[in-house]
Amino acid sequence: MAPVKVGIIGLGATGPALGPGAWAVAAHLASFVPSPHYEIVAVCNSSVESAQRSIDFHKLPSTVKAYGNPEDIANDPNVDLVVVSIIVTNHHKVAKPAVLANKQVFVEWPLGANTAEAEELTKLAKEANLKTIVGSQFRIDPALIKFKELIDSGAIGKVTSTQVQYSPFFGPPGTWMADAAYYLDFKSGGNEFHIAFGHFFDSFLYVLGDFATIKATFSQQYPIMKLVNTKTGEIVDPAFPKTAPDHMFVQGVLESGAIASVNYNRPGELVGKTLRWTISGTEGEIELTVNGALQMGHSEREIRIKTGEDKEARVVDWQVSMPAHVEGVQFPGQNTARLFEAYAHGDKSVPDFEDGLRLHRLLDRIAKDAGYA
Amino acid sequence: MAPVKVGIIGLGATGPALGPGAWAVAAHLASFVPSPHYEIVAVCNSSVESAQRSIDFHKLPSTVKAYGNPEDIANDPNVDLVVVSIIVTNHHKVAKPAVLANKQVFVEWPLGANTAEAEELTKLAKEANLKTIVGSQFRIDPALIKFKELIDSGAIGKVTSTQVQYSPFFGPPGTWMADAAYYLDFKSGGNEFHIAFGHFFDSFLYVLGDFATIKATFSQQYPIMKLVNTKTGEIVDPAFPKTAPDHMFVQGVLESGAIASVNYNRPGELVGKTLRWTISGTEGEIELTVNGALQMGHSEREIRIKTGEDKEARVVDWQVSMPAHVEGVQFPGQNTARLFEAYAHGDKSVPDFEDGLRLHRLLDRIAKDAGYA
Repeated sequence: MAPVKVGIIGLGATGPALGPGAWAVAAHLASFVPSPHYEIVAVCNSSVESAQRSIDFHKLPSTVKAYGNPEDIANDPNVDLVVVSIIVTNHHKVAKPAVLANKQVFVEWPLGANTAEAEELTKLAKEANLKTIVGSQFRIDPALIKFKELIDSGAIGKVTSTQVQYSPFFGPPGTWMADAAYYLDFKSGGNEFHIAFGHFFDSFLYVLGDFATIKATFSQQYPIMKLVNTKTGEIVDPAFPKTAPDHMFVQGVLESGAIASVNYNRPGELVGKTLRWTISGTEGEIELTVNGALQMGHSEREIRIKTGEDKEARVVDWQVSMPAHVEGVQFPGQNTARLFEAYAHGDKSVPDFEDGLRLHRLLDRIAKDAGYA
Repeated sequence: MAPVKVGIIGLGATGPALGPGAWAVAAHLASFVPSPHYEIVAVCNSSVESAQRSIDFHKLPSTVKAYGNPEDIANDPNVDLVVVSIIVTNHHKVAKPAVLANKQVFVEWPLGANTAEAEELTKLAKEANLKTIVGSQFRIDPALIKFKELIDSGAIGKVTSTQVQYSPFFGPPGTWMADAAYYLDFKSGGNEFHIAFGHFFDSFLYVLGDFATIKATFSQQYPIMKLVNTKTGEIVDPAFPKTAPDHMFVQGVLESGAIASVNYNRPGELVGKTLRWTISGTEGEIELTVNGALQMGHSEREIRIKTGEDKEARVVDWQVSMPAHVEGVQFPGQNTARLFEAYAHGDKSVPDFEDGLRLHRLLDRIAKDAGYA
């Protein structure tokens, strides 16, 4: 099959990293360049010059087109798939032209800065029967896939309860990057709740389904943040007021009837693992732990199971071998590479806009009960 | 000092065990007989004959008095301390005469079958300035005491969050003892919520204080129970309807400002430990695990802490040496022996009726939010 022709929106002229522009380098460029299933044919930034600078910086072929606005890349007939990898505030505005041009569209999670934006994109894409992807890449993590397989196969019987303790480490909990202050703003839609906790909840919905009833308690343990210049380490603002919560405890009964507790906290130090997700059933129990960043797909992961047949909990192998062009992708792009590999093979487990919208709606219910709506 | 003269209500003519009558043998008789601080001087059962049978069975001195009703033992001027160790349904009725007779009074947890009963006993005891004890013996567990000391000393800085996963094992979660069917009845006040979860919450209140806001979700994963005859193993009732919850997830913000999640579940099998209690702070994190029955004081316990000075979490020693008459007490009486030893030394950490009432009130708030009030 001919490779999918990709246009990337938001590719920085920079090395791979986690910040704006650099994420597309680390995850998308790293995934597409070695893959036989994709070919980068266009780059769009805030100006044609900026896009051309990225094309040159990354030594992309001279045939790659440079665009300065989302309409132009959307209307390039040579582009099959538009990849939107920019700040969430602009997702809707930048993705909509690609949807209207009937492209395949990838948008990073969160799909919209709010649910209304996600609804419009999803509705338009559905009406045009478009293939879409949301960048909730933890869902494609091989350990998570194995975890779900075990649950679905009835390895622990009927699921009765689940408990999640998620304690990500982004540096000291009272300090944040000055150039990403939107992350401290609840209304931005791109904060600790919508991004970090949201990524986890996508996998939760995928493995266990939605909540029938839901309650939530949020807390700000660090309402006043130190903002630092990430390049110089200098404190730019010693007392920046945060409106987003940094602790979010969620509980409820799932549509399946199981009871659930999903907690997000920011300890100063961590005795255990970054993520401990336990699923208990009538016939056994299974636990997934991740130590390190959750969704990117490089961290230490372990699945342990205990059923009536096991004297002790036993470790389950979840490793799968992938083609070299996927295996070769480095941190933090591993699960993005797996996501696009699965998409190229028509794998139905790849999250689409409808999954993203469902997640937006769940987060809204959670925030509402916590008094943050 | 002269030993405290004890009258026990509810001492069975039986060996030590966990059931009615047998608990007083396993915990109270085992604690008082070897202790230089106590002397058993009276036993009260439902009849004088039954009490005398217990005195004879346990080879207590012939001077020990046998009583057939709680008024008579309460009015024996030779009794200093009345120990009430019977089914919770009768706690109020049986303890009240001892309170009215101005005795020292011990009542097993739960103090009352409901909060009104606990309120009356507490009010009467307070008005008469009585010394009282509630049998929430996990509070006196040496590992718990060390855990609290570390928190109070600021070892992890300011407490920001706490998470508890409590998964007790009482046999298969869908089966229960026919002679303790009251345990399946929410209204009895002596069920899985009030007894098992209540014992844990006493220690929670002791270590971290009360909740400012509270939310709770309860669930019955096993609404229909098999009742078995514990002596024959025979199924007495294959489909007994349960009204008590078997899964209870609680969350809220504490008066201290920290956020809390306390979950009780009944997995078919357990990958981890019976109890995992994590307390996170601005400067570190500490975790207490218990593997096996919680409050009795014999189970495997471990405390691990990580602060900025530790490269890895380290294990904290919590063992303390106790006098031989305490150390010698066997399962399940260990923490009961420690409780009475502490009481004999005037230790203020021994839970009294006011602590019991506070716990009743917390459980009421939890049940109310869960729709079980």
